[in-house]
Amino acid sequence: MRSENLVERIFNNEKRAISRAITIIESGNLNSTDLLKDLHKKIGNAYRIGITGPPGSGKSTLINQLTKFYIEQNKKIGVIAVDPTSPFTGGALLGDRVRMSEVGCDDNVFIRSMATRGSLGGISKKTIDAADVLDAAGYDIIIFETVGVGQSELDIAKAADTTIVVLVPGSGDSIQAMKAGLMEIADFFVLNKSDHPGADSAMTSLKTILMMRDHTEKSWMPNIINTIASENFGTIEIANEISRHRQFLERNGLFKLNREKNYKVRIKEIVEQLLNNEFWEEKRAESLQVSILKVVDGKTSPYQIAETLFNDFITSLKK
Amino acid sequence: MRSENLVERIFNNEKRAISRAITIIESGNLNSTDLLKDLHKKIGNAYRIGITGPPGSGKSTLINQLTKFYIEQNKKIGVIAVDPTSPFTGGALLGDRVRMSEVGCDDNVFIRSMATRGSLGGISKKTIDAADVLDAAGYDIIIFETVGVGQSELDIAKAADTTIVVLVPGSGDSIQAMKAGLMEIADFFVLNKSDHPGADSAMTSLKTILMMRDHTEKSWMPNIINTIASENFGTIEIANEISRHRQFLERNGLFKLNREKNYKVRIKEIVEQLLNNEFWEEKRAESLQVSILKVVDGKTSPYQIAETLFNDFITSLKK
Repeated sequence: MRSENLVERIFNNEKRAISRAITIIESGNLNSTDLLKDLHKKIGNAYRIGITGPPGSGKSTLINQLTKFYIEQNKKIGVIAVDPTSPFTGGALLGDRVRMSEVGCDDNVFIRSMATRGSLGGISKKTIDAADVLDAAGYDIIIFETVGVGQSELDIAKAADTTIVVLVPGSGDSIQAMKAGLMEIADFFVLNKSDHPGADSAMTSLKTILMMRDHTEKSWMPNIINTIASENFGTIEIANEISRHRQFLERNGLFKLNREKNYKVRIKEIVEQLLNNEFWEEKRAESLQVSILKVVDGKTSPYQIAETLFNDFITSLKK
Repeated sequence: MRSENLVERIFNNEKRAISRAITIIESGNLNSTDLLKDLHKKIGNAYRIGITGPPGSGKSTLINQLTKFYIEQNKKIGVIAVDPTSPFTGGALLGDRVRMSEVGCDDNVFIRSMATRGSLGGISKKTIDAADVLDAAGYDIIIFETVGVGQSELDIAKAADTTIVVLVPGSGDSIQAMKAGLMEIADFFVLNKSDHPGADSAMTSLKTILMMRDHTEKSWMPNIINTIASENFGTIEIANEISRHRQFLERNGLFKLNREKNYKVRIKEIVEQLLNNEFWEEKRAESLQVSILKVVDGKTSPYQIAETLFNDFITSLKK
């Protein structure tokens, strides 16, 4: 009953209900599965934008400006920021969040930080689940903010309809971005702080890298937008480029196709979790503990142990 | 028969046999499982060192010096470099590898680059499998070189007995390292290019960060070693610190304990792969494709689909 009540309150865009739902998701509590199943009929209308880039590239300021722009267009905007966690303090590095507080109190804006503490890969699933809650609550646009370094961050970016990579002049960021696989996911680039020294050469090297990219005539060619976020210069251009990309996706049937791909990845992840939970029951986990000692002593191979445990699992189900 | 022959040739440290084995592992070919099972009795003697840090921090030069140092001590050294792949060219960024060629032809040295192309997470498993091949071939020391950014790289570092994080003065690397979780895995730090401007302040901020770290009296306190790799300054200090850490691990029973932990992670990964292979048989994959369209149309939830597929799997095994 309480869950149904929560679902109704989310459908009514009650911020406290949304917060609570995301907390349930963060905790990894099994209730989140039921909750998300109950929400599904209202999920799928929000447009999802991924914004990633190195720390200090001005992502938060850009998102702040973009959010204001969308508010003026009577849109409801959700922002989910994935913060790398300091392993020493245990908390998320929230400095950037402070700058967002300017728009955070608006009724049409919901901002949430999700910390990556201790979660190995699970963060992308949780972040996307949180976006689904906002989607169900009627938010038109959901922005994922990530620091573009790890696999989880790339996974989140891939789950967006449009992904923007923010870079700044200097410090060889474009080369770094290429190495980290960011080029692959960028639907367009923002060269922020474009009044800083080195902006021209950063632009040149970005263009060079983009020219190396394989592309057929009809495919999307990522643009580079110059901005100075601190002066609100370039915000409209970003919004226009997002619209242009959205239209491109819809015109070419790619919007649905991308979402299909993302759901596929997601279902596979959920299945993997269900399989792991089923497999690692108490007895099997204990058996693993014993077997490991044999591996350490060189008496057997991890592959042999895994196979034995696996065969035992299949056999036990057949009984 | 050919596999047995390959196993014998690996035990005899034939470089071409080792290369072939690693290629089999890279390809994800199922033969690699049998091969690794056959090798197990000679695995477990090599000491594994992870060296990670940002691009341009001089990791390759340091490893080059360290390798020379160990050769002089009549050790056999294997180096596995995990190269981030450019999604445009499809190849690994091999620039750094060139510098390693100086020692690569020595009979007691084996160097191999592994590219991360397209593999989602699988690279850490493959890298550790490759290390097992070198271990079976009698290499005393195996060095993993990674660019410390993603989850896979952190996983590889965790699989090492001693992990070294290389930083350079300037560019706020210490803060970045903290964000990316590198602090958590560092058994000690190397501040390379310690003759560059900003070295003192980098040292101070590193020390500050280390002081924030939780530690009890008996636990290991990571040191910071100053080096100038290009002038071979600090190499012996690094080797000494590795020895000191190794002794610490052995004295406190942590060496075996860490390896147990690593084998546990590894067996779980292998099991996960076996489960996924069993689960995603042709019919179930086709059924997923049909179900996804219902999710896109908002008629059901990814959680519902995953559960239905999972229940079907369990039921089908029971028949």
